Amino acid sequence: MRHFVLYSNHGKTTGKFKDLVKAGRLDIVANSVLHGFFISNGLRAGIDFHIVLNGPPDPPKHIRIISNKETPWSKKDIGTLLRIALWKYKKGKKVEALPGVFIERKSFVDVIEELAEKYPVYLLDPRGKRLDEIEIKPGPVFVLGDHLGIPRKERRAIKDYITETISLGNIPYFSSQCITIINHRLDMLGIDTEYWETLDKFENKK
Amino acid sequence: MRHFVLYSNHGKTTGKFKDLVKAGRLDIVANSVLHGFFISNGLRAGIDFHIVLNGPPDPPKHIRIISNKETPWSKKDIGTLLRIALWKYKKGKKVEALPGVFIERKSFVDVIEELAEKYPVYLLDPRGKRLDEIEIKPGPVFVLGDHLGIPRKERRAIKDYITETISLGNIPYFSSQCITIINHRLDMLGIDTEYWETLDKFENKK
Repeated sequence: MRHFVLYSNHGKTTGKFKDLVKAGRLDIVANSVLHGFFISNGLRAGIDFHIVLNGPPDPPKHIRIISNKETPWSKKDIGTLLRIALWKYKKGKKVEALPGVFIERKSFVDVIEELAEKYPVYLLDPRGKRLDEIEIKPGPVFVLGDHLGIPRKERRAIKDYITETISLGNIPYFSSQCITIINHRLDMLGIDTEYWETLDKFENKK
Repeated sequence: MRHFVLYSNHGKTTGKFKDLVKAGRLDIVANSVLHGFFISNGLRAGIDFHIVLNGPPDPPKHIRIISNKETPWSKKDIGTLLRIALWKYKKGKKVEALPGVFIERKSFVDVIEELAEKYPVYLLDPRGKRLDEIEIKPGPVFVLGDHLGIPRKERRAIKDYITETISLGNIPYFSSQCITIINHRLDMLGIDTEYWETLDKFENKK
């Protein structure tokens, strides 16, 4: 599996929103999920995507999406998937809101701590080593922020869990572009490159 | 300048459309333009983006977008920019529909032929050489198709203008993802990496 952890500074922690942009830039989250999972006519089979929302009214919320053929994806409306996950949140529980989509209360630091027990953790940082110059170990976890980045306090708190800081260069890419670049790098290395043809095609074959 | 040429098989050649997806997958064109020009809080300064639309009712149409601070971009609605360009088309003329946005009748082959007179042309093709293993010459032109690729007939017609065929690997990426990957490669090589802070920030500084 390829793991991503996206830190959303102000992403709303309720399903009551209409506009993704105004909901603490959940558009950035949706686009990152899109480019994390989808390719042309295909859904990547080995993605484990963690989102930590830190906006009002009830942070933090941890949405986890794991590649699953049964997830009712709408590529053009990933906001609805996020909204449903948030609606289905139940206090004190880990809920499977949709096939492959889970929600619970969990902080960014706790998410990273748990992943670091099993996997190597790579934090995106402009001062890190170049992505194409490091060795990527199996089951890599890539940690990145939204347009505001990851707050210094949080970065300090996860410091001991980081295997390596990595850089994609000096250009400030969209979070979704960072994910595309990382996915391509792993594809070129032949790590977890499986994908399924799109659900439409699955449906047609039934 | 970095040049892109995107071949759209069925992209509508009229501004009369509501849904980009139903307008011959102009959503693919819009997303490719988005990732061609935009980075986080920035607009790339050295992009020359050519789109050739081959859908009904009046193909072919050539829309050219050149990096320009005055272009009234709406990142969330690049469809409107395409629509305005198509509305402003005038038979037998090259029209500047918006600052930095041009439209005229011109075929894919003619667009490539003209670019090839001045610049090296790289055609995306799964059987090509790996992007990270070729030398990129100044002013590169990258040629790619939408979800249906470039028809064989068109590929044959541009054959003599191609400097090199290049591959991004075995995964069928979105056109927009191909553009992100190419932009990142050029960024890493330090070719045409200039960008402007977003227009919002320009406005605020006035």
